[in-house]
Amino acid sequence: MKNILGFDVPDFIEGFGEVEHFTGSWNKLKNSIDEQIIAPPVKNTLAHTSKMRDSLEAAIDACNPHDGMTVTFHHHLREGDYIVEKVMFYLASKGIKDITLASSSLTGAHDCLVPLIKDGTIGQIFSSGIRGELGKAVSNGVMKKPVVIHSHGGRARAIKTGRINIDLAIIAASAADCEGNCTGSYGPSAFGSIGYAMIDVEYAKKTIVVSDNIIEYPCIPASIRQHYIDHVVKVDSIGDPSKIATGTTRITKSPMDLRIAEMAADAIEHSGVYKEGYSFQVGAGGASLAVAKFMRDKMKKQDIKGSFMIGGVTSYCVDMLEEGLFGAIFDVQSFDAAVSTSVYGNRNHIEISSDQYASPYNCGCMTNKLDIVVLGALEVDVDFNVNVITGADGVVRGASGGHSDTAAGAKLTVVVCPSFRGRLPMIKQKVQNVVTPGDTVDLIVTERGICVNPNSPNLSQKLKEAGLKVVDINDLKKEVDGITGIPVEPEHTEQIVGVIEYRDGTIMDVIRGVKTK
Amino acid sequence: MKNILGFDVPDFIEGFGEVEHFTGSWNKLKNSIDEQIIAPPVKNTLAHTSKMRDSLEAAIDACNPHDGMTVTFHHHLREGDYIVEKVMFYLASKGIKDITLASSSLTGAHDCLVPLIKDGTIGQIFSSGIRGELGKAVSNGVMKKPVVIHSHGGRARAIKTGRINIDLAIIAASAADCEGNCTGSYGPSAFGSIGYAMIDVEYAKKTIVVSDNIIEYPCIPASIRQHYIDHVVKVDSIGDPSKIATGTTRITKSPMDLRIAEMAADAIEHSGVYKEGYSFQVGAGGASLAVAKFMRDKMKKQDIKGSFMIGGVTSYCVDMLEEGLFGAIFDVQSFDAAVSTSVYGNRNHIEISSDQYASPYNCGCMTNKLDIVVLGALEVDVDFNVNVITGADGVVRGASGGHSDTAAGAKLTVVVCPSFRGRLPMIKQKVQNVVTPGDTVDLIVTERGICVNPNSPNLSQKLKEAGLKVVDINDLKKEVDGITGIPVEPEHTEQIVGVIEYRDGTIMDVIRGVKTK
Repeated sequence: MKNILGFDVPDFIEGFGEVEHFTGSWNKLKNSIDEQIIAPPVKNTLAHTSKMRDSLEAAIDACNPHDGMTVTFHHHLREGDYIVEKVMFYLASKGIKDITLASSSLTGAHDCLVPLIKDGTIGQIFSSGIRGELGKAVSNGVMKKPVVIHSHGGRARAIKTGRINIDLAIIAASAADCEGNCTGSYGPSAFGSIGYAMIDVEYAKKTIVVSDNIIEYPCIPASIRQHYIDHVVKVDSIGDPSKIATGTTRITKSPMDLRIAEMAADAIEHSGVYKEGYSFQVGAGGASLAVAKFMRDKMKKQDIKGSFMIGGVTSYCVDMLEEGLFGAIFDVQSFDAAVSTSVYGNRNHIEISSDQYASPYNCGCMTNKLDIVVLGALEVDVDFNVNVITGADGVVRGASGGHSDTAAGAKLTVVVCPSFRGRLPMIKQKVQNVVTPGDTVDLIVTERGICVNPNSPNLSQKLKEAGLKVVDINDLKKEVDGITGIPVEPEHTEQIVGVIEYRDGTIMDVIRGVKTK
Repeated sequence: MKNILGFDVPDFIEGFGEVEHFTGSWNKLKNSIDEQIIAPPVKNTLAHTSKMRDSLEAAIDACNPHDGMTVTFHHHLREGDYIVEKVMFYLASKGIKDITLASSSLTGAHDCLVPLIKDGTIGQIFSSGIRGELGKAVSNGVMKKPVVIHSHGGRARAIKTGRINIDLAIIAASAADCEGNCTGSYGPSAFGSIGYAMIDVEYAKKTIVVSDNIIEYPCIPASIRQHYIDHVVKVDSIGDPSKIATGTTRITKSPMDLRIAEMAADAIEHSGVYKEGYSFQVGAGGASLAVAKFMRDKMKKQDIKGSFMIGGVTSYCVDMLEEGLFGAIFDVQSFDAAVSTSVYGNRNHIEISSDQYASPYNCGCMTNKLDIVVLGALEVDVDFNVNVITGADGVVRGASGGHSDTAAGAKLTVVVCPSFRGRLPMIKQKVQNVVTPGDTVDLIVTERGICVNPNSPNLSQKLKEAGLKVVDINDLKKEVDGITGIPVEPEHTEQIVGVIEYRDGTIMDVIRGVKTK
């Protein structure tokens, strides 16, 4: 029952089906794939027909809503999203049951969905992340079928293979025209790149663009193009702008995060991967983003110019683009309001789909070309496995995101993580749940030293020669455990409440329920 | 055996197969379509692998060339193209037989292919157009299987349905990077929009980008994106720049063309379709483009602003965009060198795929939103059918292009055509071959008067009230025949050398061979 990473994954999971086991990060992808991409739908329409519908409800009614349907959303509206709630409650009001909800991620804005799970409206969830009350409810066993946690690249793959077979894709846009050309790059509810939705419209049987800002034809840029859109509807508001995107992302002032970030930057500098023309991704989290600050300083000082940045993009990345430190940004998701202006106005700031960003089922995703990525972690283990989905209490509270996609593709994958948080050690013998397998992680950087994956002995050598504090992860674990003590693990139920899919579609781990307190 | 338009089309054609007969311009499309779109291929690649190949030959070898394969090209290099020849002769040198050649069109640059038909390298041809020696050879019966003539929208449809099932797509680009991001909008061999190739890369099993201008990563704009491209190769030259795109298109000085154009513009002005916010397409041919000149004058005088232009785009269209007469251009093909700069630099000049331009199998092609189109003709008939594929001698010498796509979509379809050329009347009792069915044509404008389709009585009334010279097409035919005499029709063989497909995939007409002189 234990898989190659040592996690208990049964061959069959109730409410999920047969399990294709994870066999290694590149094992499936290095062979020819015995899967088909599904056929996009034929959509013949007559000339000069209007796509404008009187209301969101009318648009949904025009899309043949039915029991068992799959409805998708993007999560570019983040904590400010009004649209998932509006759509799902309307479907509930029509008595539609057993819906598969497949949003690219779910946030605190989706606590409201718990009652719709309880009443059978929502039967299944695919998502990169689940948080807040929804995460608690999932961990407490509210779903009959386990949720499927996928990466961003894995979601694009799943849509292409029909694993997520979309009946209705809802595309919230901050500007759209009467034909459905739309963008997130400007308007009162601007959110930047609309990258996660781009793949949905290619394969969905029906698509609705929802916007609070219907503009004169044509919408430029048409981040999503009209020939994929069936219906367009104007609503008063797609979300709360103050929660959709907030100002500019600031670098952390936490001394711990800054120390970790500086150590990570030093490790990158001496890794051999950092050089003229390198490519780079950093997360938006405290220590991750702070690494960008230190790299920026190094690049200026050493007159190094990078090729491109990808990812989740913050205004800090935009600053580096504008300073000429990188030649381009490929943006699947914009993390703060200041990025939208750059998406709109700077041609070197390129919107990309999650397919182009990270799907393993095409011939050139961006993560496959990535040199260096800096990622956060909820916890890590001595095998370099990373958990970003469940908290110390075992409750679902995070997101897979592009974590495993970038880790797999990057030449140098750096995970930044404090050695403990509160009284809880962050380096485990075994992570509760694995999202990113250890063989795709090169460095774990903590405030107490840099752990180098033993499968990279040359890297270890380089960092030591540079005088950096390289520590064995087992030694570090002992040191930390000595400080914090070994905490009691949360008590799990037998119920499998979630399944963690690797980007190639194999199952890496399952999430067990936790006892309600 | 006679179809709804009165043309002889058998139910079965040797070398082609069963015929799905044309039943009316919108008849098939107004119902749900009993056809599937094919699945795009799975293309899993490993990280940090190079797509650069040492030579075009090496790139082709990497794509498993085999007997019976389908190879596609775009025709954006026009008369200057070197790539079709290079690729096809290399495949011939390898002894590959029975290739289906599916270029979006074929030009005078492809006379060289005749020997490859004779030796069995090329077994079948799909194309929008065939000209020159190749057209003559086809008409003389060189092909064992009839060529299939499709529209631009029909080609996108055929690729999506697998009617053209692409083994290898060759994408010539004027700038490309090492991952295959590419464009035609700049570089020594710039040709503007690369719109015809965009659909190929989505469905082709293998794709090769060929460029004489490999630039630093990333190529911006990425008119075609890297995740569709398998191989990239640098060649010395993709074509003869002087024949790829020549300067700026000038308005005709022919008094006959100018007279027809002025009459057409007057008819448009009084049609009721010309008004604030209208959309417009004009061909690049003499009288067609001259209509743009007269419309430009009218728009300025009357302070009318249009919404968008589409199509084949000339520098004349770009001038109108820059003057603010239209808000945007959607460009599937750029007709002259001056357009490339606009494609590159003006965000309101939007590159589109042939799918978005004109395919009937999506939910919002541009031609479905078109108000007014002005088109040329080789000959027309009293039922308003238009021939743009065979000359008076019966020889294949033209191209279907977007003719039938735009005619079907536009609210007002204007065909400009002199009543005779040389001593040959252009208004026939029946066109030799029909490309655009008469029910999608509203006006035929000749220097002797404007013929209004009898199915548009209101339009006829409006033009008469405006004092325009409206004439019955049968009367006009008689008048012209009185001047020219009725010419002897070319003597045809029994062989079906070509099949004319309507945009929806039904067969409208066949092209018979002509006796070699």
